[in-house]
Amino acid sequence: MSQKQLDEFFDYLRFPSISTDSNHKSDVNACADSLVAKFTSMGLSVEKHETPGHPVIVAKSESKDGLLTVLIYGHYDVQPVDPVEEWDTPPFEPTLVGDKIFCRGATDNKGQNFAHILGVEETLKEEGELPVNVIFLLEGEEEIGSPNLAPFLREHKDELKCDICAVSDTGMIGPGIPTMTYGLRGIACLEFIVRGPTLDLHSGVYGGAVPNPALIAAQIVSKLHDENGKILIPGFYDKVVPLEDWEREMWAKLPDGEQATIDETGVKGLWGEAGYTALEQRWGRPTAEVNGIGGGYQGEGSKTVIPREAMAKLSFRLVADQDPADILKLASDYLNSLCPDSCTIEVELGHDGPAYVMDPNSKYGKAAQTALKETFNDAARLIREGGSIPIIQAFKDILDVDTLLLGLALPDCQIHAPNESFTVTNFEAGIKLNRALLKELAK
Amino acid sequence: MSQKQLDEFFDYLRFPSISTDSNHKSDVNACADSLVAKFTSMGLSVEKHETPGHPVIVAKSESKDGLLTVLIYGHYDVQPVDPVEEWDTPPFEPTLVGDKIFCRGATDNKGQNFAHILGVEETLKEEGELPVNVIFLLEGEEEIGSPNLAPFLREHKDELKCDICAVSDTGMIGPGIPTMTYGLRGIACLEFIVRGPTLDLHSGVYGGAVPNPALIAAQIVSKLHDENGKILIPGFYDKVVPLEDWEREMWAKLPDGEQATIDETGVKGLWGEAGYTALEQRWGRPTAEVNGIGGGYQGEGSKTVIPREAMAKLSFRLVADQDPADILKLASDYLNSLCPDSCTIEVELGHDGPAYVMDPNSKYGKAAQTALKETFNDAARLIREGGSIPIIQAFKDILDVDTLLLGLALPDCQIHAPNESFTVTNFEAGIKLNRALLKELAK
Repeated sequence: MSQKQLDEFFDYLRFPSISTDSNHKSDVNACADSLVAKFTSMGLSVEKHETPGHPVIVAKSESKDGLLTVLIYGHYDVQPVDPVEEWDTPPFEPTLVGDKIFCRGATDNKGQNFAHILGVEETLKEEGELPVNVIFLLEGEEEIGSPNLAPFLREHKDELKCDICAVSDTGMIGPGIPTMTYGLRGIACLEFIVRGPTLDLHSGVYGGAVPNPALIAAQIVSKLHDENGKILIPGFYDKVVPLEDWEREMWAKLPDGEQATIDETGVKGLWGEAGYTALEQRWGRPTAEVNGIGGGYQGEGSKTVIPREAMAKLSFRLVADQDPADILKLASDYLNSLCPDSCTIEVELGHDGPAYVMDPNSKYGKAAQTALKETFNDAARLIREGGSIPIIQAFKDILDVDTLLLGLALPDCQIHAPNESFTVTNFEAGIKLNRALLKELAK
Repeated sequence: MSQKQLDEFFDYLRFPSISTDSNHKSDVNACADSLVAKFTSMGLSVEKHETPGHPVIVAKSESKDGLLTVLIYGHYDVQPVDPVEEWDTPPFEPTLVGDKIFCRGATDNKGQNFAHILGVEETLKEEGELPVNVIFLLEGEEEIGSPNLAPFLREHKDELKCDICAVSDTGMIGPGIPTMTYGLRGIACLEFIVRGPTLDLHSGVYGGAVPNPALIAAQIVSKLHDENGKILIPGFYDKVVPLEDWEREMWAKLPDGEQATIDETGVKGLWGEAGYTALEQRWGRPTAEVNGIGGGYQGEGSKTVIPREAMAKLSFRLVADQDPADILKLASDYLNSLCPDSCTIEVELGHDGPAYVMDPNSKYGKAAQTALKETFNDAARLIREGGSIPIIQAFKDILDVDTLLLGLALPDCQIHAPNESFTVTNFEAGIKLNRALLKELAK
């Protein structure tokens, strides 16, 4: 990597492109313009598309018949920097300390997408042409939930036609360990409210003879799991695709997931579905979580009421082939069945999305594994992640393509937090990885 | 009852003696002064005692050796009137509609204590002397928890020496049904917090492998009762004095407690300890209630976190001979035993007070029953109430006397709410009851 490349990266990082803050709208726009300039200088045809929010940049290499088309997605917007006083260096002044570049957006996602850009630039310079057709798709609204991306994909479906997507916005198991994510969990959210008396009651006058919605909400929540952490909703596991032996074997060889989970979260001990390791529980098994519970008096001291209502917000992380709508229906029926006749329960369904899994040993998957091995000189680890990335599902649904998730985020890179960093090592690796990936995919 | 008596009562009601509102401090004081004037006019020796809050008025009849001494307690302060727009008449302008006098404080407690005052006045006028020594104790801080009353009792223990207390600040089963309350439940409060991860976690990244404090708090709460509503805290019932046959028989003959509980609270159905009626559950059995529960995200929509902590506020209503400190210890031990090793639990103890029960068939109890029968021309119903009245326990602890609870509040009198009322019928009955009570106690 040249000093020029590092300088260009630093210039890119300096834009405070905070998408959620309207005061930074012009900064987001200037950052988009810098990408337009960069792609133009590389000889790509580039379009800046305005949206109701921030611009989408699409840059294409010269399209050649017979070549595979690879869509490389990234985002140039970043998270806010609060609390700013916890930063050791100015959040938008990239600062090199040892191997680490500290700056907001260094890892998430500017470093990772700029490495792809520089990889393509290097190939063009050295080879004169690319082994595949490349479409860069860079949005400025990922940190606010990509509200305009799916509509954009639908509207520009034809011009974005491709064979495979590549996204570097996930994590690596550890420094130097090449990692491909081939699965993400889905999600289904709901909220229920238990209602009892018409008003908060005096717990002395009425206590003992009337139902207490806070108690009943707790009893309902307690029936989500058995003592082995198994979810008790009838039919919940019916469509779950069991983990395959090779997955469990590969994950068992990764750095200790149990200890990592404890270290990263600060819990005193683990909890979960019996018979599975922490990584299996986090990546490959569905969950039922209470995201919030509330009812009655929560202030200082005591107020001896029987509350009129209590609620809980639940979310389910899903795996293939669970259907989110099915799960919400099953959960809703179960919750209704648990509410005693003395109270009423109302279940309100929230957002949902299915799990995503691609075959890591498909031809594109194998190519990505080879590219990772070439880059890091080590066999790629194949993992899933526990969260959901809705855009990946949108690529599948709208563009009908799988996505290679080739993230370079390290466990200690502090994305979304103060002192975010990206290592020079991984920035260089990202450039190499892009070149190797396009070459392997072309084969 | 004369028009003059009604006019005097109305004048007493007109003082907006709201003890909790510092803007009304002078009104509270003026109300106290009006009592001083009234007692003076009756020939009682009266003292106005300043306290750190509002004054305590003590008025004594001429003390005669060999006579029983009866302490009559009441309070001249009232609740606020908010929401004032829901009043159909001005809150502090007593308004007679049919048999009902609408005014803040009409029932709670000015009407009830002024009836005692007028009863004593009538006896003095008609008989020239009282059959017992009377001490009136009227405080101005009942609605704010009587913070200065127990210290006052301790300080003036000798001058308040008496044989029995009489308090009219409880309720009647229904219009025209004489009611004596001989028991009150005690209380013990605590709060527990379950802590897990050091920060709210992403439920996608970590969900399935780490303990969720909101889930665990719910699981703990769900283990307070078995499916029959029995409390599962080991030792909880050990010292509970079972209800006696006569109590259950008497309560069974009262107006339908099940239907009344449903009508008053608006619940769809009842809930409670199997094997007991609603009135037995409310008056004679201990409870474990969740007064509040909270953890995680409770706002609009969803936030898919695993919360770092969750809490619940519990209160236990106690019956004789449960010791509040014992119960808090047992509950605390039980809660600690329910928390899995993966989390920590912290239990913080709150306020408590023992149950109060007097023998309604003691000589003073019998006298009160006879007085009620004379007044209402019907046998007194003997009930308990589910709430706690800490001052009654203070009379027991500091003055070493029982209290006759001879309340005249009707179920529809709206104390603490807009449109509070007291019936002229009960005001007259209160005057009669005072005269009959003092006569019967003297026997």
